[in-house]
Amino acid sequence: MRWSSQDHAWMARAIRLAREGLFSTDPNPRVGCVLVQGDALVGEGYHQRAGEGHAEVNALRMAGERARGCTAYVTLEPCSHQGRTPPCADALVRAGVTRVVAAMVDPNPQVAGRGLERLRSVGISADSGLLEAEARSLNPGFIRRMETGRPWVRLKLAMSLDGRTAMACGESQWITGSAARADVQRLRARSSAILTGVDSIVLDDSSLTVRPAEAGFSAEETAAIGERQPLRLVLDSRLRMSPSARILDQPGRTLVVTCQSGTQAEAAALVARGAELLCLPGADGRVDLAALLDWLGAQQCNELLVETGATLAGALVAAQLVDEIVVYMAPKLLGSGARPLLELPFERMAQQIPLQVEEMRQLGADIRFTLKPQYPQSTQEQL
Amino acid sequence: MRWSSQDHAWMARAIRLAREGLFSTDPNPRVGCVLVQGDALVGEGYHQRAGEGHAEVNALRMAGERARGCTAYVTLEPCSHQGRTPPCADALVRAGVTRVVAAMVDPNPQVAGRGLERLRSVGISADSGLLEAEARSLNPGFIRRMETGRPWVRLKLAMSLDGRTAMACGESQWITGSAARADVQRLRARSSAILTGVDSIVLDDSSLTVRPAEAGFSAEETAAIGERQPLRLVLDSRLRMSPSARILDQPGRTLVVTCQSGTQAEAAALVARGAELLCLPGADGRVDLAALLDWLGAQQCNELLVETGATLAGALVAAQLVDEIVVYMAPKLLGSGARPLLELPFERMAQQIPLQVEEMRQLGADIRFTLKPQYPQSTQEQL
Repeated sequence: MRWSSQDHAWMARAIRLAREGLFSTDPNPRVGCVLVQGDALVGEGYHQRAGEGHAEVNALRMAGERARGCTAYVTLEPCSHQGRTPPCADALVRAGVTRVVAAMVDPNPQVAGRGLERLRSVGISADSGLLEAEARSLNPGFIRRMETGRPWVRLKLAMSLDGRTAMACGESQWITGSAARADVQRLRARSSAILTGVDSIVLDDSSLTVRPAEAGFSAEETAAIGERQPLRLVLDSRLRMSPSARILDQPGRTLVVTCQSGTQAEAAALVARGAELLCLPGADGRVDLAALLDWLGAQQCNELLVETGATLAGALVAAQLVDEIVVYMAPKLLGSGARPLLELPFERMAQQIPLQVEEMRQLGADIRFTLKPQYPQSTQEQL
Repeated sequence: MRWSSQDHAWMARAIRLAREGLFSTDPNPRVGCVLVQGDALVGEGYHQRAGEGHAEVNALRMAGERARGCTAYVTLEPCSHQGRTPPCADALVRAGVTRVVAAMVDPNPQVAGRGLERLRSVGISADSGLLEAEARSLNPGFIRRMETGRPWVRLKLAMSLDGRTAMACGESQWITGSAARADVQRLRARSSAILTGVDSIVLDDSSLTVRPAEAGFSAEETAAIGERQPLRLVLDSRLRMSPSARILDQPGRTLVVTCQSGTQAEAAALVARGAELLCLPGADGRVDLAALLDWLGAQQCNELLVETGATLAGALVAAQLVDEIVVYMAPKLLGSGARPLLELPFERMAQQIPLQVEEMRQLGADIRFTLKPQYPQSTQEQL
């Protein structure tokens, strides 16, 4: 399939539209749609919020009668199944669209090509694959969940140039500057859930909330975020979290994840403070991390942000469960007594984990790296 | 003083010319000169090798009679003293140059403005300061030596993303890729001397030589380097170096630096293998690093490259003796059991050493950072 430069330009516009939903479509995917009649745009739209109109429906509403005979550029294959809203493929047929270009096939097993087939069955030209890599990068979590039943796991780390995250005494505020910390707010806002370990709560008493007012979000972004807070998860195998922890005062849900059911008093105190308790299988007194990801997938969690210390972060990497690492590196030396980036007890060079550098960007005085671990014998699909 | 855009362009050309001497002028500075008559270049040259013509003389030779009435752009103030060659200020006067623009005043106390004064005294327009920062960056070592009597100390480090330089067992080959290792050859080739610790010799049996054939130098660069090898220094307080160390088989000089004079047998064995012994003051069985830098300055060492392990590198940084850090970062995780970047036993965040990022560049899969430590209460001048 060869695409024209116009095709590319219209799909690029649809992808930019889809990004408008970055902070609000959860648990749905971010999708954009552009309707073009000849050389003229007649409609465009994106999916804003679950339960509200899909991108195609919003674009068709704008186009009205002008949709007849036009080409639809959609960042994701139009759905063919009845969800909370009727199938978009049917809406495109009814509107008289004659050509549909999708950036990618819907990884949702309920769709998976059936939307395009439905269009073709009534004589509409329907193809996919234009700017597919860009479209996939809009929805790493949705795709991962549809394909594996687990969320996309993004590990956020803040370190000095010499790879240290805190002094030995625990002092760590602040390694990075305000621009990097504001950027972390953007990672939180796009996530379905945030995972931390109880040690981070004990040490830093973090809130793990999205606070648009503090982080330079635009008015549109602030409106899109609204009151939504990602689900907060505290991994706390032995229920050591204090009922006075600040995280329990925040808007939104806080789940305490444990693998011990017999600690009644601590559990009751946390529940009385509004925490929800999740008891998962474990071994050696530790929650099974893969089981946690399965549970999150079942809860429609697309993107999980991990903000935690070296022990839990190292365990997730060692278990090959981290899909993406975002490192904020501050240009400073904290010294060899300070805490390591990740607890990873490798002994030989052959155990090293290569990282693919997806992006490198200056944020104030700090540098942000977006990396993908290249695990040995990985069974991960490429996103 | 306002400079025209022509002035800028000609001086930029002179700076590019000066860079041609990067690998060959030692211990002299890298200097370029352009002679311009109206809008036309009539002569240009750079200093190639100590004892041979200075940049001005080479440019005047090319211009011949056309030098009369022209403007000379020189990256460093023309010398006014008799060195191995006659003063360049006099040569410019004799050639009939009517205007001289220098990028910077010569930091050599024997010149320090006298060259420009000499020119002005005979009616030549003579000013300095055009593209001064760029010109200073040509010669950090020469300037530092003229100003302080010590070399510019450049610390080279190779690490993983998590700030590790080797596994606990010592395994370290190779953390970085071939492009980064070739770049280290360029750092060596521009240096007057290379310093390492005896542990690095024991562990890696390094040669610390410049090997143009292995590192992708151009034919011109290879010719400029010729047979020159930087002076090699092994810090070995207790004379633990084996007489069979590979470094002693290499072309060029190897100095073993110690602070103990009473170890006759070991000393004799090393000297018999061609090593030179340098005995410096020390305390607690360790060589005084500042005394070593003073000695190197007295030997006309401009740029000292340090390629060593975490202990000596950490001691140099802790003593605030490192002027520049070049870090080659490989995108991989080596884990928390691996060796730290620098032995720096800080306990509080307040002890951190901020780094100014001068440059960040991709080299193959690796990333090179050029950094300047911002020591507290630093007495360093800005270069």
